[in-house]
Amino acid sequence: MTTRITGIAELVTNDPAHAHHADPGGRLGVLHDAALIVDGGRVVFAGPVADAPSASSDDLTIDVAGRSVIPGFVDSHNHLVFAGDRTEEFAARMSGQSYSAGGIRTTMTATRAATDDELEENLVHLIDQARRQGTTTLEIKTGYGLTVEDELRALQIIARHSDESTLLAAHIVPPEYADDPDGYVDLIVDEVIPRATTAKWIDVFCDRGAFTPEQTERILAAGKTAGLTPRVHANQLQHGEGLQLAARTGCASADHATHATDEDLAALAAAGTVATLLPGAEFSTRAVYPDARRFLAAGVDLALATDCNPGSSFTNSMPFCLAVAVRDMHFTPAQALHAATAGGARALHRTDVGHLAPGARADFAILDAPSYVQLMYRPGVPLVQRVFLAGEDAH
Amino acid sequence: MTTRITGIAELVTNDPAHAHHADPGGRLGVLHDAALIVDGGRVVFAGPVADAPSASSDDLTIDVAGRSVIPGFVDSHNHLVFAGDRTEEFAARMSGQSYSAGGIRTTMTATRAATDDELEENLVHLIDQARRQGTTTLEIKTGYGLTVEDELRALQIIARHSDESTLLAAHIVPPEYADDPDGYVDLIVDEVIPRATTAKWIDVFCDRGAFTPEQTERILAAGKTAGLTPRVHANQLQHGEGLQLAARTGCASADHATHATDEDLAALAAAGTVATLLPGAEFSTRAVYPDARRFLAAGVDLALATDCNPGSSFTNSMPFCLAVAVRDMHFTPAQALHAATAGGARALHRTDVGHLAPGARADFAILDAPSYVQLMYRPGVPLVQRVFLAGEDAH
Ligand SMILES: [Zn+2]
Ligand SMILES: [Zn+2]
Repeated sequence: MTTRITGIAELVTNDPAHAHHADPGGRLGVLHDAALIVDGGRVVFAGPVADAPSASSDDLTIDVAGRSVIPGFVDSHNHLVFAGDRTEEFAARMSGQSYSAGGIRTTMTATRAATDDELEENLVHLIDQARRQGTTTLEIKTGYGLTVEDELRALQIIARHSDESTLLAAHIVPPEYADDPDGYVDLIVDEVIPRATTAKWIDVFCDRGAFTPEQTERILAAGKTAGLTPRVHANQLQHGEGLQLAARTGCASADHATHATDEDLAALAAAGTVATLLPGAEFSTRAVYPDARRFLAAGVDLALATDCNPGSSFTNSMPFCLAVAVRDMHFTPAQALHAATAGGARALHRTDVGHLAPGARADFAILDAPSYVQLMYRPGVPLVQRVFLAGEDAH
Repeated sequence: MTTRITGIAELVTNDPAHAHHADPGGRLGVLHDAALIVDGGRVVFAGPVADAPSASSDDLTIDVAGRSVIPGFVDSHNHLVFAGDRTEEFAARMSGQSYSAGGIRTTMTATRAATDDELEENLVHLIDQARRQGTTTLEIKTGYGLTVEDELRALQIIARHSDESTLLAAHIVPPEYADDPDGYVDLIVDEVIPRATTAKWIDVFCDRGAFTPEQTERILAAGKTAGLTPRVHANQLQHGEGLQLAARTGCASADHATHATDEDLAALAAAGTVATLLPGAEFSTRAVYPDARRFLAAGVDLALATDCNPGSSFTNSMPFCLAVAVRDMHFTPAQALHAATAGGARALHRTDVGHLAPGARADFAILDAPSYVQLMYRPGVPLVQRVFLAGEDAH
């Protein structure tokens, strides 16, 4: 069936052919008074209303009456397979109290104790919540099991809900290996990776208190041998070798990048490694935000994602992350939306999502606003009115 | 009809009798495993499930299944009677471009040109949006008409939708009086205030580029003579006499208070004038946030409000403002929720809203979260599931 979305005051396509105005970065692609036509789950037309092919009688027409339409958000960084929450830890941290929190280990313990059904129910609830906020593609990581069995069952659960499945067995060293972190790396390399057959990505938390650059390289190399593509958590907590390592090892993306030197940025740009900035993490831990202007000036491709997890960033709201990215990371509104759609797609090596050119998957959101800029201009206001997945109304 | 809300994992009452734990400020009042019973639009019971009076057969019971219930937000500072928006001005400002914006005058021109129906339709849309985000009481100001007729028609429109109606004819000096600002003050005092019979409040923007302390005092005095109660916009853009003036003239609230000395805070505390902090304004203009800890240490009562307006803070999301207030103004989560409910009520001289003790209006919100802390822990996520106004489901 053909679906025609008409009456679009502003249509964001991310099609370079449309990138002629209103975007200092020149990459967003915005049309006014536009129509979007979908057939077989794909975009078949995205252009000025005047150029749209004529309708046939059995088309479904949705007149959005002056609203705006954007590509669905591609949230390329999520930790959604867990049990429990850390509400009290958050309240204590934000109240300035010292709190000897177990951190990731608290969630690890709850996750190991949970049934598959409990984990999947929580995952589905979070995915559904994200969808209602305009997210149409979600990458999802393991990383709260930290045993062979628990990491593999997380992958199985993810596989039922996302094609973007990431093995993050190297999230932290679990307590059983506190005195033998290399033993845990051996376990990942020898026991987990060879059985991670449904995963697309291999990820490592390369930072203070997590894994060393040497351990990171070993795990990424083993992943690549098994057919996984590498990405890393790098330089969130302090400056380190993570970004250089990401560039050197061909990572699709280096995520956080809170601490980055000019040399790091040059390396990312030269390698074509996306830097994925995660404003929710800096927001929820009161950390200093990285400045997007430096990354863009250095020629680094940027993505924006939520980092949804129960410890350091329990938001799955891409609109919230966009508003903070503009206010505090100095993205322009156009750059922020590009990073949250086309940027996320690039960070996931996807060409079918993150844009609305003909041939793209028809994943898009209708906003109750005449312009996408209202996502930042009206922070916190739930402006996502309807979401379509492969041309089908998601609710 | 009696409505029984059961299965409440966490019930925030703001009843001092319940303020025994989990709140460093000691004022929030939180119960766990609680029930809320409503009759005739009022709370008749708010307490532990075990103490609830038994149900009769025709009661309506709503089991919220482990969710939390909070008093509806009292948003005590809104500018909602206007036409047009300023999306491009926002995008330019946040992109670091200089922009010779007309600012408030842009909105003034659009507002004067709009029909009553257009203004009311926009107002109703914004109120409805706020309600869905948990706001049950909204103060609404005039201030974009700036002629006798346009200010009075704004009051008429507000009167159809809120009891908390504020005359802010003294928002800026309109262009017609650019060379004679005192002539505009004369107009307000002689022509507008005497006819502002539906207004409850008189407000003045006492700041750089707006009205002087002398002009402010004259307008507030005339308002008091006409039976209005004073409140002011003070010290948003720079330090000035506004906060001292607010204390001296018996203002219910001094709003913004971005720039405040210790002497200002002492004066507010001594006078019992609430300071209403507006995080949306600092967020959307990239200004420095005031520090709530200083106000609380000085004994100043605090409210939190959105300042919803198309120029400097186009959010009507109290949950968003709470998250920013905790992150960037250093409220604790408990203090922030208190300020957004009981604090707002106090800033509006209301004793029937902002709390859920027996006798209160049954204005409350059910959150899709086990604790109110998730409003801050899960920033941007639409957690408000259902809203009740005087015991009736608002949607
Ligand atoms: Zn992460
Ligand atoms: Zn205001």
